[in-house]
Amino acid sequence: MEEAIRYDIAIIGTGPAGLEAAITATIRNKKIILFGEKDLSVKLEKAHRIDNYLGYPAISGAELGKRFREHLDAMGIEITEDRISAVYSMGDYFALQGNTEMYEASTVILACGVVAAKPYPGETENLGRGVSYCATCDAALYRDGKEAIVIASGEREEDEAAFLAEVAAKVTYVPTYKGGESLEELRKNPRIEVLEEKPVSIERKDNKSILHTASGQDVIADGIFVLRESIFPDQLVPGLEISGNAVVCDREMRTNIPGCFVAGDLTGAPYQYIKSAGEGNIAAITAVGYLAEQKRAVTTN
Amino acid sequence: MEEAIRYDIAIIGTGPAGLEAAITATIRNKKIILFGEKDLSVKLEKAHRIDNYLGYPAISGAELGKRFREHLDAMGIEITEDRISAVYSMGDYFALQGNTEMYEASTVILACGVVAAKPYPGETENLGRGVSYCATCDAALYRDGKEAIVIASGEREEDEAAFLAEVAAKVTYVPTYKGGESLEELRKNPRIEVLEEKPVSIERKDNKSILHTASGQDVIADGIFVLRESIFPDQLVPGLEISGNAVVCDREMRTNIPGCFVAGDLTGAPYQYIKSAGEGNIAAITAVGYLAEQKRAVTTN
Repeated sequence: MEEAIRYDIAIIGTGPAGLEAAITATIRNKKIILFGEKDLSVKLEKAHRIDNYLGYPAISGAELGKRFREHLDAMGIEITEDRISAVYSMGDYFALQGNTEMYEASTVILACGVVAAKPYPGETENLGRGVSYCATCDAALYRDGKEAIVIASGEREEDEAAFLAEVAAKVTYVPTYKGGESLEELRKNPRIEVLEEKPVSIERKDNKSILHTASGQDVIADGIFVLRESIFPDQLVPGLEISGNAVVCDREMRTNIPGCFVAGDLTGAPYQYIKSAGEGNIAAITAVGYLAEQKRAVTTN
Repeated sequence: MEEAIRYDIAIIGTGPAGLEAAITATIRNKKIILFGEKDLSVKLEKAHRIDNYLGYPAISGAELGKRFREHLDAMGIEITEDRISAVYSMGDYFALQGNTEMYEASTVILACGVVAAKPYPGETENLGRGVSYCATCDAALYRDGKEAIVIASGEREEDEAAFLAEVAAKVTYVPTYKGGESLEELRKNPRIEVLEEKPVSIERKDNKSILHTASGQDVIADGIFVLRESIFPDQLVPGLEISGNAVVCDREMRTNIPGCFVAGDLTGAPYQYIKSAGEGNIAAITAVGYLAEQKRAVTTN
């Protein structure tokens, strides 16, 4: 069996916090892996105008994103386009569950942004019992005539649904976004039914998952995939301490889990690009210090 | 007698923390006064190269400073070149003692950076010419067999020296503190020589930096890093709570004095431009929230 590469720092998220963390960690000669999208951040991309990113007066989000990408390119930092659905603390390292493979890292920096939505009632309780966040990971469970529901927050989930439909007998696709041409394409898939209803809550009963919708229509299937741009941080990292919708951290960006650091919007307001970048910098430097401490501990024990 | 103008926010310091605070407060329509120098920051101006200010790969301090000034100009923010020697809390406002006049502001953001209490003779004159304050920033200059001296005020600088030794051919490490176990560890690094001598003065000659020590021994290298934290913000603001060398603050940049906020290097390490800018943003937003609360309290009482 091939042995996994052990990264020094795994960084999840390609907004300003994740990018700055990646840059600072790279300068400090750490072996990093950066998970996110080559397009960086939908939120940034769509910002009309940013006035308070010091050094760039009145810049559009698209333009600032371009400068960020140039910075990554100049430093040879690559983005791994895999979606991490779970991070497990294994004692002296972390195991990260991607779509198709597992990754290992000595430390983790969570910079995956704030999740605007709240979980649906019944979602958290049934996670792992008919509710899943990763189509690629759990598709195999839908062989042999099983049916799935996909609640999708954006266009990128359409690929996930199409993949799922290669395995499952039927996929009910519930977009919570305004669909475009690609959604029309999806409708042509004979195994996919696109249902434009507002999801309200999730229920598990007699080994079936039920999605209750605002119109009163219930959809029943073997399981439900809730695919959002980002996962609630305490579901991503079991045991992570949360207060309100923010991860609890200290001024050095440490969370309650040793070796797990945090930066950007998911530490709470203000939701500002420069604040996120600053925190990414601190998180990386704290992670570097933590790695040095671990190394010293190993040497002296 | 002329009545003093009551500013909403007085910002002390024109490094990245103060500038970002000024920009964010201005966007929030606050009446601000920004104290500092038109040249912004000597430290920034003399930084050879900054690699981790997200959006500006491999930029010189002088160039980055130019971009900062352009940002101020674009927003019509002016710098008041008066040196504030004391800040007094007067209950519902602050009185700021300048060189020639007093100022009044409802809130204060301290962003005046780390103050080197007593530079070594030759240190200030040679800043940027063989003398540097930031190993992370300038390490790259020591590639290709270059040698460095590190004058270190505390254990935390050992990591900096170790990092520098990854790049430089040799690092002479001069601790001005009483070393512990970690210093013993550092001695094992084949590229680091720990020299327990008292630094006296710095000289630049024939493109080399010379450290003169109390015993009369001279150390010659390509450059000298003076890594220290000496800051006395509690002399500036009587009653301000300090821990070690940093102003005690929470994640929203509040100090122990209501209405007095802090940002940048004087909140402690890491001493990084993007971290300072991020904190300036947070401090301004917290100050804006504080002003709104005060106004509500006045209205309802």
